[in-house]
Amino acid sequence: MERYDIAIIGTGPAGVSAAITAKVRNKKILLIGSKNLSSKVEMAHAIDNYPGLPGISGKELQTAFLKHLEEMEISVTEDKANGIYAMGEYFAIQGHSGNYEALSVILAVGVSVAKPYPGELENLGRGVSYCATCDAALYRGKSAIIAATSIEEEKEAEFLAQTADKVYYVPMYKEPAILHEGIEVVRQKPVSIEKNENGMRLVTEEGAIEADGIFLLREQIAPSQLVPGLKVTDNHIQVDREMRTNIKGLFACGDITGTPYQYIKSAGEGNVAALSAVRYLSELKR
Amino acid sequence: MERYDIAIIGTGPAGVSAAITAKVRNKKILLIGSKNLSSKVEMAHAIDNYPGLPGISGKELQTAFLKHLEEMEISVTEDKANGIYAMGEYFAIQGHSGNYEALSVILAVGVSVAKPYPGELENLGRGVSYCATCDAALYRGKSAIIAATSIEEEKEAEFLAQTADKVYYVPMYKEPAILHEGIEVVRQKPVSIEKNENGMRLVTEEGAIEADGIFLLREQIAPSQLVPGLKVTDNHIQVDREMRTNIKGLFACGDITGTPYQYIKSAGEGNVAALSAVRYLSELKR
Repeated sequence: MERYDIAIIGTGPAGVSAAITAKVRNKKILLIGSKNLSSKVEMAHAIDNYPGLPGISGKELQTAFLKHLEEMEISVTEDKANGIYAMGEYFAIQGHSGNYEALSVILAVGVSVAKPYPGELENLGRGVSYCATCDAALYRGKSAIIAATSIEEEKEAEFLAQTADKVYYVPMYKEPAILHEGIEVVRQKPVSIEKNENGMRLVTEEGAIEADGIFLLREQIAPSQLVPGLKVTDNHIQVDREMRTNIKGLFACGDITGTPYQYIKSAGEGNVAALSAVRYLSELKR
Repeated sequence: MERYDIAIIGTGPAGVSAAITAKVRNKKILLIGSKNLSSKVEMAHAIDNYPGLPGISGKELQTAFLKHLEEMEISVTEDKANGIYAMGEYFAIQGHSGNYEALSVILAVGVSVAKPYPGELENLGRGVSYCATCDAALYRGKSAIIAATSIEEEKEAEFLAQTADKVYYVPMYKEPAILHEGIEVVRQKPVSIEKNENGMRLVTEEGAIEADGIFLLREQIAPSQLVPGLKVTDNHIQVDREMRTNIKGLFACGDITGTPYQYIKSAGEGNVAALSAVRYLSELKR
């Protein structure tokens, strides 16, 4: 498998900045995220305090970032990380669309505001999962529930339905969920997760749904779930002034490292994380 | 005296960013520095990694910063800080051109590369000083040596010569020093400073000059000299992730807090420092 120097997870201002600085330093980088970069940036009305770009709109900043990436010949790999594992000499990254390897990783995934449901973390990997495409093969002849916060996730449901016998789809967004007929759309509000001898049970405000497994598809995965062993406080990754986490070779930047949630703060941290990763790589080679 | 909410010392990317964010938060700010902002920025050939402004020249970035300040109605007070003193409820700032008061201070003065001369720190305030205009009154009927790293300092020599009997001017830059006839220009390279019963002695590679006092005028003053009691490691101010120094109400950002010396890192830190100062002010009022 192709092994990158630095994998950057996330395409908000932190990830974009890290990618640009790493590229300036001639590193072989993998930038995983969205071709639209960040919906949060895109939706911002006016940004007053990004020095040099007075009163820029989110849409304009997005365009400026895209132009910067293009000029530096940095491409975005459209994917979402589901798990990042320190393998000793490198990191294995499990994405929804593929798997990747890199000598170092910069996490710039943004802050996750969702609190886990009661019963979620206890059953993670034992009936609860965050990636339907990753686990689809395990659901041959079985049933599954997908609870999704974004319309983007419908393709995961379609994919799972090709293997699973039965898919319940719980849309947690306003747009109508349009899925092929084998998928049952259930508009209920999840409350908690239970496990019993028949399998998993998603308890909702309106009742409950039962199946062999439950997939929770959110914009972000809590960092402690994304990287086993990562030190996290109040859902923020602990970093030092060099943006190092407690895991060697793993760096973090942007909102995920804590407040203030500001574009210029994130961009600054992305730069620092990239240069710390570059230094880490040069130490590896010695 | 007018008391500001936040005094920001320095007009590089860190200071400019801090000023912009503090202004967005409606604070009464004082921005001390140069109307040209930063000669380091101005001279930069091309900056590749300031996200959103691909391949911008230093001159263009300077223009963009100036435009941003203008649009936000932030003016620069042309001065240089010589000393910053924590007075308990506020900070007193001694500048070359005036004195100021503020409830909080953000230091964004850039990194000082000059090492002190042997004999410099031992005699600081006892024959050695960093501000000729501040101490001019003490030199009536006396002699003084000014060693200056920049042509900008010639006006300090002219000012001092109005009071002092004799001024020796040691230019440590290439441009010719054009000063009025009462000032003796001595092109020698300073090596160390000594004190004896006759006064001060600037030892140079070529010999020595003697006078009642010595003024060392550099672009930056070492942070530990600028703020008594400030915790400094390797000439960098110690800060935490909120850009707080060891002195309550005093924050620092940019190159002065350590490597990497990068514009976007400085701009990000300026934002964080400003928001930390805003929080500090709101706690003061409780």
